[in-house]
Order: sequence, then C-alpha cells, then structure tokens
Amino acid sequence: MELLKERIRRDGTVKGTDVLKVDSFLNHQMDVALFEAMGREFLRRFADCGVNKILTIEASGIGIACVTAQSFHCPVVFAKKSQTKNIAGEVYSTRVESFTHGRVYDVIVSKKFLGSEDNVLIIDDFLANGAALEGLIDLVNQAGARLAGAGVAIEKAFQPGGDRLRAKGIRVEALARVKSMSEENGVEFVD
Amino acid sequence: MELLKERIRRDGTVKGTDVLKVDSFLNHQMDVALFEAMGREFLRRFADCGVNKILTIEASGIGIACVTAQSFHCPVVFAKKSQTKNIAGEVYSTRVESFTHGRVYDVIVSKKFLGSEDNVLIIDDFLANGAALEGLIDLVNQAGARLAGAGVAIEKAFQPGGDRLRAKGIRVEALARVKSMSEENGVEFVD
Repeated sequence: MELLKERIRRDGTVKGTDVLKVDSFLNHQMDVALFEAMGREFLRRFADCGVNKILTIEASGIGIACVTAQSFHCPVVFAKKSQTKNIAGEVYSTRVESFTHGRVYDVIVSKKFLGSEDNVLIIDDFLANGAALEGLIDLVNQAGARLAGAGVAIEKAFQPGGDRLRAKGIRVEALARVKSMSEENGVEFVD
Repeated sequence: MELLKERIRRDGTVKGTDVLKVDSFLNHQMDVALFEAMGREFLRRFADCGVNKILTIEASGIGIACVTAQSFHCPVVFAKKSQTKNIAGEVYSTRVESFTHGRVYDVIVSKKFLGSEDNVLIIDDFLANGAALEGLIDLVNQAGARLAGAGVAIEKAFQPGGDRLRAKGIRVEALARVKSMSEENGVEFVD
C-alpha cells in the first residue's frame, strides 16, 4: 500500500537494525484518516472472505481494528493482556511473549464474544516474530471459529513470523513489508 | 444520548451496586457503528471548541477515541500505562489509580505528541472516580496544552469523579449518566 509506505519513509524512524518507530502516526499518535485508507485496503484484500468479526490485541491494534471494522461493517473484539475484575465468566486464554516489552502476557478473550459462528479477521499494527498473531490464532481455534486471515499494517519481512504463518496456510496480508532497514539508509520495502 | 442509553438498558449487566458490564458493545467487543453515532454526538457537543487533538488512555478508550476523531478530523494520542522500549526520548508522566484493576499505573505520553499548540479533547469509556481523567488532565497541563473538555461514554453519576471535575471548571460531557443501578431494577439514568 503505497500511501503507508510513503508515510513510513517520511515519518518513520529506524533505531539500530530492527526497531522501526512509527509512533507519530500509527501506535502512539494515530492518524485516523490513514487508518481509514488502510481499512479500505484490508477490505479490498479480504472482501471475498465473509468476515463477520475482527479480532485484535490491546493496545496498539485497537485503533486500526476499529476503523477497519467500519469498512467491514462488523464488530471488533480485542484480546486483553491480563484478567480484570470486570470480565466475569469464562475466557479463552493463551500466552504471548512480547519481544518489545520483554515479558510474557496472559491474553484472554471472553467466550461470549468468539464462537463457532464467527469468521474472524485478525488485525494488528506489526508482524515481526509472529508471537501476537499466533496467540490470537490460538484463541480463534479454541473458540472453534473460522480464521479468514490476518491483516497487519507493517510486516518486518526479515523476521520469521510472516513466513512461518504463511507456511501453515494462513492468509497474511501486510500493507507494508519491510525487507531491511538501517539508520543510514532508512527502510527498504519488499516489492 | 438516547441510543447509548437504550443499548445499556438492553445489553448492559449490573453486578452488585457499582459494576456495569457493557463488554458486549463498548469495552471488549466493540460496536463501531454505535461508536460512530457517539463520535457525532461528541462533535455536536464540542463543535465550538476548536479541538485539534484527542487524548485517551489505553486500552478501552482507544476505539471510541479513534472513531470520534474521524468526526473531528484530528489525530488521537493514547496515553500508555507503562514505559516500553519503543518510546525513546522524554515523556510526560503521571500516576493513575485504577479501581477496576486495584493498582496504580504510571501513565505516559511522549512530549512529541502533546504541546502548547494543542487544544485537547479527552475521550474515555467510563467516568466514575475520575482518576483516569485527572491523570490525563495532568498530562495536558504538563504539556502546556489547552483543555477543551472531556467526553465520556458512561458516567457513574453516583460516584464523585464527574462532580469534582465540573467543580474545577472542566467541561465534562457524558453521553449516558447513570443515577443509580441494581441487579433487581437495572440502570436508572439522570434525566
């Protein structure tokens, strides 16, 4: 998606060889007009899939997921990183290792909001090691729901997550696939 | 806002005398069509304020904030509950006590995304004790930004947060103000 790539080139910042900061428009400050364009592009790519629910994970996936859900005319469910007193009843639960935060989270979704009637599109901001997506896929499987696929804004294609998921037959669509990056030369995208 | 009140009456669940579960449409599963209507209502109420940025707090405020920002044609910044490796540089920081989670969070916003040029509308899902809103207001003040006001989906008007903020001269708009609630009689709204 050229609009997103242009924005990453213009406003993204590379730290070292594996940190891409896009916090001015994607995951701290959020450009919702860009999100609208991204949502339309996700719809174009998954239009034939009969998606009736979008699943994401807190926190930085929520904004993209909600605006994307407007294009799909479906609700969003966000997986929570720890159980709170406000979630009564039973939940699906999985464990996700966050490389960004250097810790492991319990990630939960209420059983009320994910079930065998659902055809789920997973949406997230980043795909790198794939740990978050694999956790969300585990929740979809526990629920007996169908997985339409996963849509991410940015894939670090030099990390193994995307290839590993695709090798399992999962449809993964990334709006911008980063081939390599460096502080000197910036970001190079997969064609 | 009658649409939201009707939805709370229909799909909300009261636990005891102070827990109102709205997780089927507001803060776990999210009805983005409802959020669109809420965003238009926030715009109607704050149309004259020159808002150029929406500030919220992760996680359950983000969806409402992003969809509301589409009506205001402005970006969203969400305050984060703990510092991560991906936020470089300096941040504004405050402490917020979460009564729902029974703990105190450090809440931060990058100084890059909040400054004296900003006229900020704070958006959140719930107002009860007011701790989250007060923390966000503290961040706005630290940034030297102007505060247009705060918009929340649901105010528990029987708890002190809303009145305390209004007594300080802060414009607080709640789309549904709960006067009282019980498992037997459900939710009663302020007129």
